[in-house]
Amino acid sequence: MTFQKKLDDLVKKNNSLLCIGLDPVLEKLPKQFLQEKFSFFAFNKFIIDTTHNLVCCYKPNSAFYEALGEKGIGELKKTCDYLKKDYPEIPIILDAKRGDIGSTNEGYVQFIFDYLQVDAVTIHPYLGQEAIQPFLDRKEKGIIVLCKTSNPGAGEFQDLRIGKETIYRKVAKRVVRKWNKNKNCLMVVGATYPKEVKEIRKLAGDMTFLVPGIGAQGGDIKQTLQTGLNSQNAGLIMSSSRSIIFAKNPREEAEKTKNTINRYR
Amino acid sequence: MTFQKKLDDLVKKNNSLLCIGLDPVLEKLPKQFLQEKFSFFAFNKFIIDTTHNLVCCYKPNSAFYEALGEKGIGELKKTCDYLKKDYPEIPIILDAKRGDIGSTNEGYVQFIFDYLQVDAVTIHPYLGQEAIQPFLDRKEKGIIVLCKTSNPGAGEFQDLRIGKETIYRKVAKRVVRKWNKNKNCLMVVGATYPKEVKEIRKLAGDMTFLVPGIGAQGGDIKQTLQTGLNSQNAGLIMSSSRSIIFAKNPREEAEKTKNTINRYR
Repeated sequence: MTFQKKLDDLVKKNNSLLCIGLDPVLEKLPKQFLQEKFSFFAFNKFIIDTTHNLVCCYKPNSAFYEALGEKGIGELKKTCDYLKKDYPEIPIILDAKRGDIGSTNEGYVQFIFDYLQVDAVTIHPYLGQEAIQPFLDRKEKGIIVLCKTSNPGAGEFQDLRIGKETIYRKVAKRVVRKWNKNKNCLMVVGATYPKEVKEIRKLAGDMTFLVPGIGAQGGDIKQTLQTGLNSQNAGLIMSSSRSIIFAKNPREEAEKTKNTINRYR
Repeated sequence: MTFQKKLDDLVKKNNSLLCIGLDPVLEKLPKQFLQEKFSFFAFNKFIIDTTHNLVCCYKPNSAFYEALGEKGIGELKKTCDYLKKDYPEIPIILDAKRGDIGSTNEGYVQFIFDYLQVDAVTIHPYLGQEAIQPFLDRKEKGIIVLCKTSNPGAGEFQDLRIGKETIYRKVAKRVVRKWNKNKNCLMVVGATYPKEVKEIRKLAGDMTFLVPGIGAQGGDIKQTLQTGLNSQNAGLIMSSSRSIIFAKNPREEAEKTKNTINRYR
């Protein structure tokens, strides 16, 4: 089954566009998890078990696991294995923001799709389509290209203009018109830039966007939904991490966020 | 000691601009290493022991280790630990091509500089300076920004023009004039694009370039050196991986490449 189909099915079943970022940080974990041998995995398991029917997918970010080195990668693998076994209907996005030359990307493809066996990955566009072909060739997987990122300084390069068009717009057009031959491309568009969400939706048809930046980063849920939804009243993966997983009651916070999103659909 | 100082010292001591990429691949390893418990580490140790006095640095690419998952990260760590213990004068570049939003980059910084304890890393410019500040803040480390990459399709975005200037040129100017406050920036410029090496040298002063693309990728050593050397007759880290490490006699091949480079200095 393709990533898109798996995602669409769960969006319907759970009536949710909410993606929870599984981004554990030792200093922020509740004490009971620190006593576990695999603290990150134990924490993720708790988050997953309490929120699995509220989400359309989970998104671990590789950086938080790599911070612990070899052990961290083991905990990331345990997390993915647990999801695939106990919640096989939930898609997993590895937020890895990778991008190397072609022959080297084969290594990342092995790590992400063969070892961790996740359903989708985020990638950098800077090296061009020829370099990221090993990702694009995985037809059944979601290849999520960074377009307009959520950080405050995103515009330094992304907003520069090629003639009348910004770089992020050029990226969007290439992804939509050239890179998406296998119908497996998505794009990252930050909720902190709702105008750009609107602009990119206009040229992207029904393509799904991964939308970080709601929650701790302060992105505007209402505006993003009003302008970013596709013709199927979906097409947005609204991602939140810190503000849910480190809340006093993560399930309550996830439910609140899911409902806020649905209010504006 | 800063990365740059460590590099300059070894360039002089070994009279070499050659960087060897430690990029093991199971299918290509000589048989004797496959029987080892830690095949990648055993192979790297062999390469290091036979070439250490011919290089100015080593450059493992993270992708090749991640391909093996948790075990691979362990072998990467062993390789870095071995270098730091037995050859502490040799700088290590982790070719990781990372780049996330600021708070997330902290995780990568921990992995690369605190866990692996390497001396330098390659990063993507697409998210802008604000995002990569956690890297730039590590004054003693080398932060190597992708500018003009060595792959055939590099130009898809990098050659687009903002007014009269290409994107890679804009990146170069930002790195040289804004990002380099801690004097710890370098740039990636592929040997497969010698004209661009010349152009970027003109605006980069004596900044060091990491130059992949010689060897298997066919980059032009002579042209790159004739136009890319800085005023100190250095400033280029000439990187080769496959054509040296998988040669019948890696030491011989490394020596040949080192000498070819020195012929044109």
